[in-house]
Amino acid sequence: MSETIAPPHSATSTGTLEVTDRSRLRRSHPRGHFDRVTIDAILDAQPLCHVGYSIDGAPYVTPTLQWREGDHVYWHGSSASRALKASKGAQVCLTVSILDGFVLARSGFHHSVNSRSVMLFGEAFRVEDPEEKLLKLTRFVDGLFPGRYGSLRPDHAQDLKATTVLGLKIEEGAAKVRTGGPSDEDEDYALPIWAGEIPVRTVVGEPIPDPRNLEGVEMPDHVRNFRMK
Amino acid sequence: MSETIAPPHSATSTGTLEVTDRSRLRRSHPRGHFDRVTIDAILDAQPLCHVGYSIDGAPYVTPTLQWREGDHVYWHGSSASRALKASKGAQVCLTVSILDGFVLARSGFHHSVNSRSVMLFGEAFRVEDPEEKLLKLTRFVDGLFPGRYGSLRPDHAQDLKATTVLGLKIEEGAAKVRTGGPSDEDEDYALPIWAGEIPVRTVVGEPIPDPRNLEGVEMPDHVRNFRMK
Repeated sequence: MSETIAPPHSATSTGTLEVTDRSRLRRSHPRGHFDRVTIDAILDAQPLCHVGYSIDGAPYVTPTLQWREGDHVYWHGSSASRALKASKGAQVCLTVSILDGFVLARSGFHHSVNSRSVMLFGEAFRVEDPEEKLLKLTRFVDGLFPGRYGSLRPDHAQDLKATTVLGLKIEEGAAKVRTGGPSDEDEDYALPIWAGEIPVRTVVGEPIPDPRNLEGVEMPDHVRNFRMK
Repeated sequence: MSETIAPPHSATSTGTLEVTDRSRLRRSHPRGHFDRVTIDAILDAQPLCHVGYSIDGAPYVTPTLQWREGDHVYWHGSSASRALKASKGAQVCLTVSILDGFVLARSGFHHSVNSRSVMLFGEAFRVEDPEEKLLKLTRFVDGLFPGRYGSLRPDHAQDLKATTVLGLKIEEGAAKVRTGGPSDEDEDYALPIWAGEIPVRTVVGEPIPDPRNLEGVEMPDHVRNFRMK
């Protein structure tokens, strides 16, 4: 099945998001980016996201995985999930962030982190059509592990029913990116203080086969070659 | 200065948070933890957090760094920050999450991730006293890089004024932890499908000294020995 499906992230993103009151960066303007190339690259590099929603006016932030298809991001969960029920048809903020390093300056004030993040705002919608929902879930799994979905036991109808997929159009939001070393006050460069950057990154460890795998079942390429972008 | 300061995270945490309507886990109950040992270990292992707050009823999720001191978590930012102004004295949700791996099952439905996360709820307060604020910031930096604050150019008064520190008492919230391999339907274990776990972790790269460091300034131990817990 998977070979008939267009790869996720396939759309070419050349646009720029309109700056709104919600997405405008108040500070550190030069770090703000509204172009889809920058935004999409961050979304595609980090499946972990944090979705903010409200219940009775109080904010909640739930970590979950997101995936992008063209002009939308999607996430999923149990149809019984309070988070998903509260998000559907409601305003949400979906934030993806990648910590790239710690920036050590010559004063406490100028310490910083190198990071890439995206905040998206809008009304979350539920993918209602069962076939479309299955297609979204297929693309989610195959986006991480190319070709895996077709190798799996097909979904039971009740499992699909028990799963909700939410989506959000990429139309309001901003990316924020900081790279490079510290930026100190001019006079502080004369001080004998070590300054610099400590990079951090996510690495993939050796896959751990389930002890109950049948004999002769080989590790597929989509496992062996899995990397965090 | 730093040697006179008690190490952050120093309090022994033996309590258990009361389960509230907000913090009760609706699903996956066995993955929920309310004991402070579990909660504190996650907070102390991952400085990156996502703070959820509301502006005009709409949710926002801002990535920032948090640090724990005893029964509180703190985060900071520009005093001009919209995020901090909207959070002060308001209900927030502070979420810390660590992705430990991808869990590949024999059906799409049972795919999962191994992760550790904490959601904390409550009213954020601002640290008003200037000396206490400086102490908090000192502990923040020294918590990551032991002894660094005392080696820095002392803060300018206006920099401290321009910095806001917010805090949240650890009293309402929950941790969620998943570990181990896939959990498939009994009959699916007979299928010749590779299942297992792909671990991921954050690693620290080689520190990059600022090219403008003075000659003879050596890399301090708090840089050389820095590790993500």
